[in-house]
Amino acid sequence: MSVDDPYAELERRFARMSAVNRAGAILNWDRSTMMPEGASEDRADQLATLGVISHELMVAPDMADLLSRAEESKSGLDAWSAANLREMRHAWTHASALPSDLVEARTLATSACEMAWREARKNRDYKALLPTLTEVVTITRRVGEAKAAALGLSLYDALLDEYEPGGRCQRIDTLFAELESVLPALLQQVMERQNAAGAALPLDGPFPVEAQRTLGLEMAKTLGFDFRHGRLDVSAHPFTGGTADDVRITTRYDEKDFARALMGVLHETGHALYEAGLPRDWRRQPVGNARGMVLHESQSLLMEMQACRSEAFIAYAAPRMRAAFGKTGPAWDVANVHKIYTRVAPGFIRVDADEVSYPLHIMLRYRLERAILGGDLALADLPGAWNDGMKALLGIVPADDSVGCMQDIHWPDGAWGYFPTYTLGALAAAQLFAAARKSVPGLHNSIGQGDFAPLLRWLRDNVHTRGSIADTDTILSQATGTPLGTAAFKAHLESRYLSA
Amino acid sequence: MSVDDPYAELERRFARMSAVNRAGAILNWDRSTMMPEGASEDRADQLATLGVISHELMVAPDMADLLSRAEESKSGLDAWSAANLREMRHAWTHASALPSDLVEARTLATSACEMAWREARKNRDYKALLPTLTEVVTITRRVGEAKAAALGLSLYDALLDEYEPGGRCQRIDTLFAELESVLPALLQQVMERQNAAGAALPLDGPFPVEAQRTLGLEMAKTLGFDFRHGRLDVSAHPFTGGTADDVRITTRYDEKDFARALMGVLHETGHALYEAGLPRDWRRQPVGNARGMVLHESQSLLMEMQACRSEAFIAYAAPRMRAAFGKTGPAWDVANVHKIYTRVAPGFIRVDADEVSYPLHIMLRYRLERAILGGDLALADLPGAWNDGMKALLGIVPADDSVGCMQDIHWPDGAWGYFPTYTLGALAAAQLFAAARKSVPGLHNSIGQGDFAPLLRWLRDNVHTRGSIADTDTILSQATGTPLGTAAFKAHLESRYLSA
Repeated sequence: MSVDDPYAELERRFARMSAVNRAGAILNWDRSTMMPEGASEDRADQLATLGVISHELMVAPDMADLLSRAEESKSGLDAWSAANLREMRHAWTHASALPSDLVEARTLATSACEMAWREARKNRDYKALLPTLTEVVTITRRVGEAKAAALGLSLYDALLDEYEPGGRCQRIDTLFAELESVLPALLQQVMERQNAAGAALPLDGPFPVEAQRTLGLEMAKTLGFDFRHGRLDVSAHPFTGGTADDVRITTRYDEKDFARALMGVLHETGHALYEAGLPRDWRRQPVGNARGMVLHESQSLLMEMQACRSEAFIAYAAPRMRAAFGKTGPAWDVANVHKIYTRVAPGFIRVDADEVSYPLHIMLRYRLERAILGGDLALADLPGAWNDGMKALLGIVPADDSVGCMQDIHWPDGAWGYFPTYTLGALAAAQLFAAARKSVPGLHNSIGQGDFAPLLRWLRDNVHTRGSIADTDTILSQATGTPLGTAAFKAHLESRYLSA
Repeated sequence: MSVDDPYAELERRFARMSAVNRAGAILNWDRSTMMPEGASEDRADQLATLGVISHELMVAPDMADLLSRAEESKSGLDAWSAANLREMRHAWTHASALPSDLVEARTLATSACEMAWREARKNRDYKALLPTLTEVVTITRRVGEAKAAALGLSLYDALLDEYEPGGRCQRIDTLFAELESVLPALLQQVMERQNAAGAALPLDGPFPVEAQRTLGLEMAKTLGFDFRHGRLDVSAHPFTGGTADDVRITTRYDEKDFARALMGVLHETGHALYEAGLPRDWRRQPVGNARGMVLHESQSLLMEMQACRSEAFIAYAAPRMRAAFGKTGPAWDVANVHKIYTRVAPGFIRVDADEVSYPLHIMLRYRLERAILGGDLALADLPGAWNDGMKALLGIVPADDSVGCMQDIHWPDGAWGYFPTYTLGALAAAQLFAAARKSVPGLHNSIGQGDFAPLLRWLRDNVHTRGSIADTDTILSQATGTPLGTAAFKAHLESRYLSA
């Protein structure tokens, strides 16, 4: 086939891949929210087929030629199209680096390991996980090696690059070292201070699911979620899925504790607003995708941690919480609710961690996964290394591996190189929120009045509508004046937890 | 590419098409039940892309050769594989008959006409529908001509064959003539009888949606619906969708009238049980699909009309209805509820019609669509012809076209040749139910005790697990002793409405 305009042909093909991938995203959402239990094999077949079709479109024999020819004439492209072509090349390089038998082997190994993990975690039996986890590590190394060769990167950077294009160990090491030099001491200080101030009064339940749901919908709308283009549902593990025009967030409800589910909804709303704000003209092209997991996590944490746990927002939200559940009494005072939402205490479980200790959980995982992939830590020794690390970083040791090295799905699931993006996202969130406060006068007041429009406008202009036009550091630098750093995050923690 | 085993290669390809089509079925269900309004363009793009991919797989350049080679060596195939190959050829002949520009033109024309139809029906303005409907007819004729040439059939038979493989006008004409010779008179007789007996007491609402839903779920389970492999949700127009392993039925609730929604659920449950009972070993191949729309409709009508409107079932259901809504009084007596569920009265709206007058609605549409496609009736003259036909067949004339010739979506939607399958399905339902009663002792008693297992077992053996192993008439003959006829249906109506 001869193609007159190779770039136009690429856009056509990537639009088709996008449609297949978006279909898959809705089917994935359905699997976690609506699908009856007996349909999992049927659904797995559908999703695997769509995955293969999308992959085959990507690695079609003439793609390399189309990319090269389009690159030769890229001087004729505008900035967005040129960036789109760069993103096409990047996506193609990742996909074409892996022979199809390796792609299939990875799918099989992670499926088997995920199943084994559910059982092993339930039975607190790490040994039962070891065989399939070993296989996952072996295959992840092969994947990393193949991608490293194609991208000219180290093995770990090549894996990380899939989740955070341009993300590099060297950068992470520097940032994490800065954090580690202050966080453990800061954590102690905050805890002493909070202990001295006394415990918060507990909020008295139960909290009916329907009232929680109504409150969650109201708050998500307050932040800017457009329900003409999205839904809120229930799943075992909260997530944001669907597509930019059809964003689907989930939560889980606990009738004894509404506070977590609510903050979870606001967290996912942050992700959702990013997706919904991606550049409208590039919805179906790579440059229109979210930049990477660092900026994605920055948007959820900016909403949840920076904006919604602020005293200003709690002052807005507390009376609405009271009204939602028909409650009265001192536990529902703003000061007490704020105390609950800013409580700091090291625990075993990452997903339950406060924002001060969370990075320490991530550093542990980052350190361990690099050591495992690099051959410096045998999987058989992981539980011991985990417990030693917890002791050193957080001062506590889990009673068993189910709340230790087996708590997360990421390793069984093959998401090696993913963990650091959580903490890089937290740094970016603090940095972006500080910049927004500087450039939007009265931002805190607006948030205190439940008016998120000024914040959302700033995020739309500076982050969301940028899509993948540039790399994370460029987007951050243009938005905040500096590349990703730790200063804003440290200042945020000190201001929230140690001042006044 | 050289393929050693062409049949195995065909199975591989059809399995892939099946996965794409099943993915599309879930996305279609989502569109009608869950999707937020703002996502329709996004979803249309996903579904169109999956449709194109499936079509491209079907009409791949080497398919004709694969089919021919597999057919040359089909003596080596077992009966199911041989039938599967026959179904592959049939599906390929339909798909490859249409050039891709005609496929696209049909999609565009029916989308435009469907949109115009929603407005025109609302405004009771047939003239506003005429331009797009004319385009749909023009394109439907081209489709019919192309398929007629490929299949060696008349234009109408070629269109009908897509919904009911093997269905032919000549057969329909005979069956419909038999019905028409008795139905109008029978309708009069039944109405006189019912008028003499007096009206039923109305069931006093309101009926809360949640209680209706609970009752619907209970009744669907009673019939055999397996909710580990399916769901019941709400949509504007009730339908059965999803896949054989993940059957999704819908209904709509009216708090003033639960009776229709409930019978709607039982109707869709009949469709669902057919899908769920299709041969397990052939789930992802053409021979594992439902045989056609006649047997599909037979399964819904067998459950709704034959089984669930019987006095035996109403005796089982009436106390459960009472309990579901916490009601008492003579209106809830079995005899009165049965009276409600067997009321006969000609009306304008097909979907609300009783089983005696329903075939007359179908005959009118069948006659008109053949005349239009054959050039014997101009679209401009449709409203007049419709009203004349209503007068002749049902004795009533609609006040305007919104409850006349514009009431159904089928013509705007391009489903020409579909209507007759409703009535052929009603005939098949009566014939199958009569055969089941003959071969399963005590069937009526079981149904009266809410035990549908004996009926379901018979349907599984005689209809569901046959998939597309043979044509409709063969399956019916093997199950009932005769090909499709009107005798059982006429006997059923006489027994239910004119005896005792």
